Amino acid sequence: MRVEAFKIATSSPSDVAQLDNYIKQGIIDPNDVLCIIGKTEGNGGRNDFTRELAMTAFEELFSKYLGISRTEVAERIVFSLSGGCEGVVSPHIVVFTKSGNILQEARQEKRLAIGIGSTRKFQASEIGRVEQVEETARAIKEIVASLKVDSAEDVHFIQMKGAITNYTYQEAEQALKDNKPLRSNMVYSRGASALGAALALDEISAKDIRDDAICQNWDLYSGVASCSAKPGLDHTEIVVMANSRYAEGDLIINHGVLEDILDTKTVHKVLTELGIKCDICLTAEQQKKIVGVFAKSEADPRNIIRGRRHTMLTDDDISDTRYSRSVLGAVLASVIGDTAVYISTRAEHHGPLGGGPLAIIAKV
Amino acid sequence: MRVEAFKIATSSPSDVAQLDNYIKQGIIDPNDVLCIIGKTEGNGGRNDFTRELAMTAFEELFSKYLGISRTEVAERIVFSLSGGCEGVVSPHIVVFTKSGNILQEARQEKRLAIGIGSTRKFQASEIGRVEQVEETARAIKEIVASLKVDSAEDVHFIQMKGAITNYTYQEAEQALKDNKPLRSNMVYSRGASALGAALALDEISAKDIRDDAICQNWDLYSGVASCSAKPGLDHTEIVVMANSRYAEGDLIINHGVLEDILDTKTVHKVLTELGIKCDICLTAEQQKKIVGVFAKSEADPRNIIRGRRHTMLTDDDISDTRYSRSVLGAVLASVIGDTAVYISTRAEHHGPLGGGPLAIIAKV
Amino acid sequence: MRVEAFKIATSSPSDVAQLDNYIKQGIIDPNDVLCIIGKTEGNGGRNDFTRELAMTAFEELFSKYLGISRTEVAERIVFSLSGGCEGVVSPHIVVFTKSGNILQEARQEKRLAIGIGSTRKFQASEIGRVEQVEETARAIKEIVASLKVDSAEDVHFIQMKGAITNYTYQEAEQALKDNKPLRSNMVYSRGASALGAALALDEISAKDIRDDAICQNWDLYSGVASCSAKPGLDHTEIVVMANSRYAEGDLIINHGVLEDILDTKTVHKVLTELGIKCDICLTAEQQKKIVGVFAKSEADPRNIIRGRRHTMLTDDDISDTRYSRSVLGAVLASVIGDTAVYISTRAEHHGPLGGGPLAIIAKV
Amino acid sequence: MRVEAFKIATSSPSDVAQLDNYIKQGIIDPNDVLCIIGKTEGNGGRNDFTRELAMTAFEELFSKYLGISRTEVAERIVFSLSGGCEGVVSPHIVVFTKSGNILQEARQEKRLAIGIGSTRKFQASEIGRVEQVEETARAIKEIVASLKVDSAEDVHFIQMKGAITNYTYQEAEQALKDNKPLRSNMVYSRGASALGAALALDEISAKDIRDDAICQNWDLYSGVASCSAKPGLDHTEIVVMANSRYAEGDLIINHGVLEDILDTKTVHKVLTELGIKCDICLTAEQQKKIVGVFAKSEADPRNIIRGRRHTMLTDDDISDTRYSRSVLGAVLASVIGDTAVYISTRAEHHGPLGGGPLAIIAKV
Repeated sequence: MRVEAFKIATSSPSDVAQLDNYIKQGIIDPNDVLCIIGKTEGNGGRNDFTRELAMTAFEELFSKYLGISRTEVAERIVFSLSGGCEGVVSPHIVVFTKSGNILQEARQEKRLAIGIGSTRKFQASEIGRVEQVEETARAIKEIVASLKVDSAEDVHFIQMKGAITNYTYQEAEQALKDNKPLRSNMVYSRGASALGAALALDEISAKDIRDDAICQNWDLYSGVASCSAKPGLDHTEIVVMANSRYAEGDLIINHGVLEDILDTKTVHKVLTELGIKCDICLTAEQQKKIVGVFAKSEADPRNIIRGRRHTMLTDDDISDTRYSRSVLGAVLASVIGDTAVYISTRAEHHGPLGGGPLAIIAKV
Repeated sequence: MRVEAFKIATSSPSDVAQLDNYIKQGIIDPNDVLCIIGKTEGNGGRNDFTRELAMTAFEELFSKYLGISRTEVAERIVFSLSGGCEGVVSPHIVVFTKSGNILQEARQEKRLAIGIGSTRKFQASEIGRVEQVEETARAIKEIVASLKVDSAEDVHFIQMKGAITNYTYQEAEQALKDNKPLRSNMVYSRGASALGAALALDEISAKDIRDDAICQNWDLYSGVASCSAKPGLDHTEIVVMANSRYAEGDLIINHGVLEDILDTKTVHKVLTELGIKCDICLTAEQQKKIVGVFAKSEADPRNIIRGRRHTMLTDDDISDTRYSRSVLGAVLASVIGDTAVYISTRAEHHGPLGGGPLAIIAKV
Repeated sequence: MRVEAFKIATSSPSDVAQLDNYIKQGIIDPNDVLCIIGKTEGNGGRNDFTRELAMTAFEELFSKYLGISRTEVAERIVFSLSGGCEGVVSPHIVVFTKSGNILQEARQEKRLAIGIGSTRKFQASEIGRVEQVEETARAIKEIVASLKVDSAEDVHFIQMKGAITNYTYQEAEQALKDNKPLRSNMVYSRGASALGAALALDEISAKDIRDDAICQNWDLYSGVASCSAKPGLDHTEIVVMANSRYAEGDLIINHGVLEDILDTKTVHKVLTELGIKCDICLTAEQQKKIVGVFAKSEADPRNIIRGRRHTMLTDDDISDTRYSRSVLGAVLASVIGDTAVYISTRAEHHGPLGGGPLAIIAKV
Repeated sequence: MRVEAFKIATSSPSDVAQLDNYIKQGIIDPNDVLCIIGKTEGNGGRNDFTRELAMTAFEELFSKYLGISRTEVAERIVFSLSGGCEGVVSPHIVVFTKSGNILQEARQEKRLAIGIGSTRKFQASEIGRVEQVEETARAIKEIVASLKVDSAEDVHFIQMKGAITNYTYQEAEQALKDNKPLRSNMVYSRGASALGAALALDEISAKDIRDDAICQNWDLYSGVASCSAKPGLDHTEIVVMANSRYAEGDLIINHGVLEDILDTKTVHKVLTELGIKCDICLTAEQQKKIVGVFAKSEADPRNIIRGRRHTMLTDDDISDTRYSRSVLGAVLASVIGDTAVYISTRAEHHGPLGGGPLAIIAKV
């Protein structure tokens, strides 16, 4: 298995011109495309249609090249598009391709390996509860195993699009009567997905997983999960990125857990461990090595950061999600020297309160 | 002359409780208060009434302690309140006091000295034109001279509230006929104030000052100016901060010119020159030395930062001024380790396009 | 008792110049001022400081004229300031004065009478529960009685600032354990205040008042209540406006219940009953008779209005409260012909879902 | 020629399900579709991608049914999509179909006839100048003639997508030197298109058309134009709607000029002239007759409406375009009783300052 990654700037959500060029020039083989992670310039909220617009453009492009329907494209390739390019964050995509299978023989060095899979279908009653956490953990473990990593510590990034199973009014009423109200919504689905990753990688122990801990006990979290959730999706799509001796290529991945959205120390630590040590900001040479930067941001719900009050949660004109993406985007860009960074928001059980995971992929 | 500075967090725009405490406890003598620079949590725009609310509270407080009217308070103390605490920027004020006059004898070390003054009254026809630049330069030079600095390089921060003289419809019409249209507005007033500072400190040469260069030739700029403008004000209020051998105390000031709003290198350079050298972020000990951080931000009008597209100027939901304050605030806070940083926007002739001045005051 | 009302346009939240003029000219006697209801041009949300700014200006003005402290002004005069002048809604205040007491002898005609009072102090555990509803009803009945109205149908407008009693963490925990979680918040306080009015005026029956009906059973509502709530206030301030044979003057009041925020039929009905019948829009002559227009608006929580989808609740860039004020303000102004209309939002148990009360005061 | 119109609610910008149903059921013949005018739920600004998303869906649908490419669909059918469904305005489209050609023999009654055409290509130097006005007028006259109307008064609605021809830096520089700066932008293109309509229909006289009157003399305007402009388009697309004795069907159109965005009198007048007279609001029966409501809104640039200050132009949190659409949408919906109304903004030379044209299509 050889993974390659292509960072491509976009001029609008529907811009696939450069991706198309890469395909035409033979730089990217459309058959090898595994997943596309990117930022589109909407507001990241309920009335953000830029993700759908981008999806339309991607589906149409790959439909043409692969000779399959749009629906088949969406089933074959994992698209993780996050709306909201606040402040300096620049609209872009990272296209991941995979050629060949996982190697039979271990190599000396570890290289980036990517595995894709999904959970079984969930009942609405399982979402946001122990069942979702455990099945998510099971599915992740299976994918991780396929990558032949040395240990769970080689897993650095798990991107998930979580299930939010539809339900009827009757099911909701029955659940209330059973004293087990439905949790089939964004918040709980993201939270349970993240805990699933934490469980799979032994970041938390099985005994901590209880219904009343989910979205309640914030001491439990994953440092590698990056979860969204999609209403109507009845299973969870999972992308696992890890370093494996059974992968070739010239990419490696590392991660860290940001203590808060100003935590540059952890950014430097993640870079240093990737062999990219810098004083203040990466040099132009070093920047070329960075293929992808993926983080989760959150306006600290305690209204405090570094001991001082912030106003992100009490400003009724601008969403705290937009603010926190703007802040972390600026901080990461100030160290990396590149504004094509992927920041998504809402980080239930993703790192400590007010913090979140950061993963960086670099060329060796 | 001994200057002291007090950084005070505020819980709302009208919060003067801690300032009042300091006065009651004898920490601050209200007679010594020279100026107050601070951030209030509005939107920084035309419908931002938080500055007025803060002014009301300050005027009432000092009116009580000094036994003078509110109007007299506003004439005696310089208030520079900037609306907009985006992202992590925390609402706060810095209160500057001065006791004693400039010394007769030079001391070994230079210390922070502050001088206050104003220009003569301007005609509306002079605003944004050579006349405003030259008179502003003259007034600044006079203040600088009073501080007995070794050279212009000891001047690090010039805060100005610029004139926007009122005019009649007839005056505007006449000016149009004379082919010298009135420029008595925010943009031109700020630009001319900044060029006045640049001229006073020999950052530009007198021959560069032409009407058609103002708000046109962006290669001309000051690295120490921080200008706002106030409709109806017919003169410009000026605060000059410099290091002088004729000042006592334990504060020093330094500045740098940010190349863009991600420019952490310059932040580190300014800190290092203040004797506060750090790797990535100030330590808790070092943070205690920082008394004030003052910067100007601007969304690069070329729509590009670090070679990539930004969307700050094409987002019709959020003002670019709010974005750029959020970005620079986050970047400064990530290095300083403190979110009580003063960022104001609109930086015509304040540093290069897309960049701006940064001044830091620290304890020795 | 003779009530007079003065509609005054404001040029900013702190503008009291015209009110001051009226006092100086003897048109308004500051001793007679009973309450001031007005719109300020903020966003009506948590970071709207325009109400505080206006309060500061009012308190200062009356403090000067009445020779009492600001705090005493705030206790003596009821101020109901609502932030948010969206669309055409024009910033303004209506100043109500009262001279003389309620008459001993009934007159032929009914005229506007105003009574002011308050509830007892509430425990945090009582807010949003039956206790608050019943005590609010009791206090209203007392005020209504003092106005000597013929029947409850003569009461047309009850403006309340409701209690949100502070509580300790321990009290909140204990309440949870007692299975009676605290409801000391905006939503429940407004809801209980409105139900208090409904109970006092027999719009609902006592048996309907149960803890689990409050903010749950939306069929219960008042058609005359207009409630806000203020964190930290431990009692509810009440202003009752009614037509009474024991009042003099030339003002009368009427109300109606808007079915939705487009319901012009009810606007016309309320006007007609006031003797102001018009075809489409009031004539200039008729407009002069209108002294105050007070309404509550709400974006229909079912996402539907007149059978079609609205997007007010799914637009993450603009608050639904701003939208609904903009819509109802436009609709009222299009009939009244005057944009100085008072619309406030959040209407729990104020009229049917998606609708709300409308009161109009006119000169006979 | 028989024109039919179908008002279709959409559940999102890309929703073409109901349109698809109508085609499948034979209600709409895709070959007959002439133009689609609709509202999508973006912000109507530069970062509104909902129009592009809707276009994608329409092009794909018609591409499938007509067996032509997307580009050909866009050339064949006129799409006028306006972003921004503020307040109660409900996302919807109106699909216009035409079967048969203009009749040879005049009929007794006039019926809605639609003609489509375009101007020649414009040079960038012609945009916003006399050349654009005159060529637009010429093209409109040609289309009007083809509809065999009795007089210009039978023309009630001219929807245009105006040219904004691209230009090089050199061309812009040369134009400046020639003292004829380029006006190839939104404002001037819309203004010149509207004046073109005014000229074609004798609403203004040819002698009034001068370069310095365009976007300057607001007394010149059209009462039937509804113009947008599209960067990069080098010609203007024109749809003319008129009543003609040479058209069949059951639709008629009428228009009026709103004096301001609260002008319900004109709404009633337009309805009455269509034979739909109502007291306050249309009955359910009357509502069924209304097929399309098309208007232009503008926040009065003088900051005054009905003699009072409005804050739409000084609110830095919400665009005045969003406010004015919200206001006029609410006002129209309050009379029509239907929230599927088409309001677009920016109305240079469209009706008097602060007002704009209103066209209504109804079944006889």
